[in-house]
This record gives sequence, C-alpha cells and structure tokens, in this order.
Amino acid sequence: MQKTPKSLRLHIGLFGRTNVGKSSFLNYVVGQDVAITSHIPGTTTDVVEKPMELLPLGPVVFLDTAGLDDASELGALRIERTKKVFDRCDVLVLLTEPEAWGGYEDEVLAEARKRRIPVVIVVNKADTRVPSADFMESLRRRSSRVLSCSCLDRQGRDPFVHSFKAQLIEICPEEFLHPPALVGDLLAQDKLCVFIVPIDKEAPKGRLILPQVQAIRDVLDGGRGVVVVRESEYASCLKNLRTPPSLVVCDSQVVARMVEETPPEIPCTTFSILFSRSKGDLDEAVRGAGVLDQIQEGDKILIAEACSHHAIQDDIGRVKIPRWLSQFKGFDVPVEVCAGKDFPENLKGFRLVIHCGACMFTRREMLARIERAREQGVALTNYGVAIAYLQGVLSRVLSPFPSALLVYQETAGTPQQH
Amino acid sequence: MQKTPKSLRLHIGLFGRTNVGKSSFLNYVVGQDVAITSHIPGTTTDVVEKPMELLPLGPVVFLDTAGLDDASELGALRIERTKKVFDRCDVLVLLTEPEAWGGYEDEVLAEARKRRIPVVIVVNKADTRVPSADFMESLRRRSSRVLSCSCLDRQGRDPFVHSFKAQLIEICPEEFLHPPALVGDLLAQDKLCVFIVPIDKEAPKGRLILPQVQAIRDVLDGGRGVVVVRESEYASCLKNLRTPPSLVVCDSQVVARMVEETPPEIPCTTFSILFSRSKGDLDEAVRGAGVLDQIQEGDKILIAEACSHHAIQDDIGRVKIPRWLSQFKGFDVPVEVCAGKDFPENLKGFRLVIHCGACMFTRREMLARIERAREQGVALTNYGVAIAYLQGVLSRVLSPFPSALLVYQETAGTPQQH
Repeated sequence: MQKTPKSLRLHIGLFGRTNVGKSSFLNYVVGQDVAITSHIPGTTTDVVEKPMELLPLGPVVFLDTAGLDDASELGALRIERTKKVFDRCDVLVLLTEPEAWGGYEDEVLAEARKRRIPVVIVVNKADTRVPSADFMESLRRRSSRVLSCSCLDRQGRDPFVHSFKAQLIEICPEEFLHPPALVGDLLAQDKLCVFIVPIDKEAPKGRLILPQVQAIRDVLDGGRGVVVVRESEYASCLKNLRTPPSLVVCDSQVVARMVEETPPEIPCTTFSILFSRSKGDLDEAVRGAGVLDQIQEGDKILIAEACSHHAIQDDIGRVKIPRWLSQFKGFDVPVEVCAGKDFPENLKGFRLVIHCGACMFTRREMLARIERAREQGVALTNYGVAIAYLQGVLSRVLSPFPSALLVYQETAGTPQQH
Repeated sequence: MQKTPKSLRLHIGLFGRTNVGKSSFLNYVVGQDVAITSHIPGTTTDVVEKPMELLPLGPVVFLDTAGLDDASELGALRIERTKKVFDRCDVLVLLTEPEAWGGYEDEVLAEARKRRIPVVIVVNKADTRVPSADFMESLRRRSSRVLSCSCLDRQGRDPFVHSFKAQLIEICPEEFLHPPALVGDLLAQDKLCVFIVPIDKEAPKGRLILPQVQAIRDVLDGGRGVVVVRESEYASCLKNLRTPPSLVVCDSQVVARMVEETPPEIPCTTFSILFSRSKGDLDEAVRGAGVLDQIQEGDKILIAEACSHHAIQDDIGRVKIPRWLSQFKGFDVPVEVCAGKDFPENLKGFRLVIHCGACMFTRREMLARIERAREQGVALTNYGVAIAYLQGVLSRVLSPFPSALLVYQETAGTPQQH
C-alpha cells in the first residue's frame, strides 16, 4: 500500500506550536514509533511526510510542520516551508494544549478558513492539565470539531483514534472517499469483460439494479467493453469471444455457477465484492467473513442494508443469506435485519455484521459504519464476501484482488475453503 | 399485420340493438366496406370478427354482435353467442341512437361494469334526429365516455374517428399498449448483440440513461446477451466476436460512425428508433421524417421532449438537432422546444413535430400525442428517425424493420438518402 500514488493519499497537515507534541501525537495515532520524538524544541527540522494506512479511511500522509511561530535561527526558512503545507493539505489537524490558545492558533485557523480546509482541533497533553470547561467551550465556538487526548494514556488510545478517524471521515474531501474505479482498473485493453446478471424477482421491471448499471458505466468510462448476459447464456457467450474476458463479474446469487463455468485462468468476482472494495474495505470484509467459522449457537448476526427497499418473497438479506448461513453452520443462526438509516448505534450484541454493497451510499457513509463496528470490536463483512465464503468459493472470487486474497489466506486456517 | 396473433389484438365488443347501425358504424370507422350493411333487421347472423389496423393504436378486432334483444327464431342461439362476446372483449362500444336508451342498454352497461370492461357509448344516427340535451346528459351520468356520430356524414368522419380512437387509447388495457419487446424480438439465439453507448455530457454521472438500461434489460429478458461498448471501442469489439452480432444499436448521436463501421450484412439501428417502434409508431415516424425534405424557409418545427430534464450545453433537442437541420436544409429552421407536460394542444403552427424516444412515457401517453398530431394533420417523427434521415442513413438503420423500410422507400422519392 506504500505504492499508492501521493495524489490519492489524504494529505493531513499537522499544525501546532513548537513542543505542543506533534511528533508524539503522530506516534500515538500510529501506535508505533514512526516519527522523531524529542523534548528538545525544534527537533523536527523540516516538513516530515509520514504516509500510513488509517483504516478504514485508507492511505493518508501526515505533513508534520515545524510550527509557524518558531523563532530559532532556521526559522525564516521553516516558516516558508510550513506555509507551503497549506497548499498541499486536504484537511488540517491543529494541535494545541490546555489553556494555550493564542495568536498562532487563530492565525492557522484563519488561514485554513480562507482556503476552505476543514480543521480538527486536538487538545493534547490533557493528562498533564485537565482543560477547563471555559477553554473547551471557547474552542467549540471556533470549531465544531474539538477532541482532547493524552499521548501518555495508552488505555485511552483506541477510543481517541476511533473518534479522530470518525472526524477525518466526516471532513475529508469526497474524492478521497471515492476511489477512481469500481471495476475499470481490473480490465485489460482490447479485451471484453463479462457481467452475469440474473433476472429474478429482485430485478425491477424493465430495469437493472443500480450496482450493475454503475459497474457497466465504470467499464465504459475506462474505455473497455462489457458483455451483459444471464447465467443461463453465460457459457455459450464465453465461447463466442475470440479473446477470453479479462474479468467475469456476477451477482452473488449465482456465484457458485459462475465459478463452475469459468476457466481457472480467467479472474472472476461478484458485484458485491467490487462494491466492498470501492465503498468500504475489502480486506476488512474478508477478515470479517472469517468470523463465520467461529459463529456458535446463540450468536446473533446483523444483516444491514443501505436502503430500505420493499422486501420480496425470496429476499437476499432476509431469506437467502440466513438460509445459506444455517446450511453452512448446521444450526439456525438468529439474524436481525436493519435497513436504511436504522443501523444501530450499539452493535455489541452482534457477533458479526453482514452489510450490503451499499451502492446507494457515499463511501463516507459506509466508512462511518465500518468505523463504528471496528470501534465496538464487532466484525463487519459484506454480502458478496459472506456469500462466497459460505459457498466455499471466496478464494476464487478474490482472484482479482491480491491483497485481499493474502488476507484471506492468513485468516482462513480452516480447510473448508478451496 | 393480419398476421398479428389474435391475443395481441385489442378485442372491441360492438354492442347495440338490432338495426341501431352496427355494421354501418364499422364501415364508417374503417372507411371502407368491410362489414355486411343492410336495412333488414338481423342480417348479421353471427358474431362477425373484423380485424383491422386502427393507427396509432395498432391491430384491433371488432366483435360485431347480433344484439341481446333479438326476438327472431334463431334468437336463443344468438343471445348465447353474443353473451360469449363479453368473455372475449377488452373494451366495449355500446351503440345507441337518439332517445333510444332502454333496458337493453342498461343491461349491457351493467354486465360490462360487473366484468370491469371499459365502455364507450356512441349515439349513432345523430343526423336523422339531433339527440336532446337531456338525453345526452342522461348518458353522461351513466358513462364518462359518450360520443355521437352520423354514419352518413362523410365530412364529420375524420374528427369522429379521431375522438373515437382517443377514447380507445385511454381505456384499452395496458398490455395492448405495451408491445412485448423493445428489442428482444430482433435477436437471434446464440448470437450477441452490440449496444454502442457514447459517454458524453448527457450521461448522468456513474449511470447509463434509461433507454439504454431498458434495452439491456429487454435483451436479457429475451435470453440473449449484449456487448455494451463506447463508439471508440466498437470496431475492436466487433473483431473479438466469433459470430457476428445479430443486431447493433447505437445512440443517435453516433449513428453515422456506427453505419460506417458496421458490415452491411449486420442489421443496425438506434435506441431512439427502437423506442419509436415500441412506444409510438415507427411507420408514422418514417413518414413524418419525409416532411424534412419539404421544409421551407419560415416553416416551424416543434421539438418535443417527454421529460423536462436540465438542458445541457450541447443538448440534443435544443442544439444538435437544430444544427443538423440547418446543415441539411442550408438555412436556419426555426425550432420551438417543449418538455414534459407542456406539449401544446394546438400543433397547427408547426410543419413537423420531432419527438424524443419517450422512454419515460407509457405507450398510452405517446400514442395520445401521435393521435393529436394526426388529428390536426401535423406530421410527427422521432429524434432517432429524424437524425438518421438528416445524416442520410435512415434506410440503413431501418434494416431490422421491413415494414418501416417499405414505408421509407414509398415516402422518400428524393435521391438524398442512400
């Protein structure tokens, strides 16, 4: 993931007076020693770029500044360089400490406002001196996003980092939440791909469901062509292509049949898995699916749908997934279904959340849900990943995604999968 | 068109007392002697089925009954047979004459209501005796659809037939307005078809426009597969197919390029033309396009859109068609644009109406517009037909439609087309 192009990383400017603890803060967030930590003022002699994965948000890079208020010998040059950080950052973290708000902080905030860069204020060193209610109130008048933290508090680290990431998910520009491609990056030039689209009761009359339309559009945007076909015509359609397709994608409901009819050298996956990657976090979903092996009698599963559609007779979330679950486990697994905005605040009663592809969601909304589950220590997977897992074909349909496949191989110790 | 299966013809039960003029009425509507006409009571000795084309509605069959009130020797049998007409008719025309409403008429109306068969009441012989206001009022209390006619009035025939057809379009069951296939009937088994979908400013972000989605769905419903591709990848995609496609369909905006790149033995057309056939009347649209040759300076054209979408910079109706029109004619053709429900009642100021594909309309709505134009003697064509005509490729893109091609060959006397 270090190979993510810089432009696709969320650039987070980290501002704060000398010695407010920027490097310690970075270490605290990352949970490992990645930045220089020191108590000597001005150790960080230049803008330090620290790329990292901040899941589920994805790749970010912190731009650790030396502070605009520095007065040491190299100050002029450092101020110059620090100002350039404003040009490059997508969001800004302004680190301060209790009762220490002043001209510097106001200046940073004003510059950020002028440039419309969203800001999170973090009051550091909340352990050494509890910030007064008046002080916190004055900060909240300046910004709706104020957190406090203590970098020495190891126990408080997880809750803080979750809140911090939740803030970043809310404020970061849309383009960092929308990876450029749903499927386009998986396709080879001068090859077609194939989409297998079953026409069942869930398909709206005379239309296609949204994820399929979105995926077709993404193929076209990428300058490729796509064969759209039902599962019953798939085999004969394959024979009609001179060059094998670069990718086959099916609706999860026919994944077993697709795997059976697809030559092993052709990568294949499902629409839902494409969406898990694009709107959510495929690696996490694969990890989450591993929990299916550990489900025991009495464990409860939450089926979560992004939109509240009219449930049909053979509904995928309400009927089919529960049925496949019971077949897989050999006992009835109690399932609760939530739809639309009803995603519970408290997920702790559930062993696992199985979420739909979220085609109707912005990535921001889906990431917020993933973060909520993560914060509460509840595993979350996705319809497509779960269905492929339950049907024993997950590794096959992860073939287009090396990193997720690796996660799968690390997670799945059981021989149930092939 | 006599080959249309019976079940796809709208069955119109024609009821009325002996000698109210059912056979004359039929002749009047058809405009030719197709039914037995006689003044001797009871000439029509059995239910006579008279199939005909009632454009733009399509194929209908009149079931001409002998009357439930008949008292002659063969009466019992005839009443039996007549009653069976109720089982078979989709809509019902009840013919009466001035001041002659009675038990028979009430009985027919009651039976129709019981069976939920929609009824049009027609007061015949309005020439021999002008129906009183009271009489007409009493009929209107019984039904919202009351017309009067005189089968001897040759001049009044056209307006009457237009009103009569407008009533039938309003009351006939949906299935007779929705032909089963948009494109599915044009495709061969074990062959793919190709849809060329340009991605321009009109394409909604991350989606496809509705007619394309509807067409893809129709292909799948028919058990065929479709290659979806942009115009820039079309040629290379064609080479990738072992069997040539059974049909190629493109967006009208790239019709010239499609025709150029499609081998002559492969049928091809445009989405808009598919919709003209499905929602409207392709033959009529081809006839309408012929008017383009006759447009003279000062003639006005109405561009009609079914939905009021936000007009974009290079809008097809507002910018592109007017531009192609001017290029075709060599002078500026004044164009008026109406969108959504604003289709004018009075079309007489226009030489021609060019209507969009009406993918958002029911067929009923589109047929009502076609009928309105026809009634006022104003030609109506469709975006796709007009564009193909203006670009000199109409005969090529009518290749999948033999009857429309015939109309074209009859209409287009000019050598401008190839």
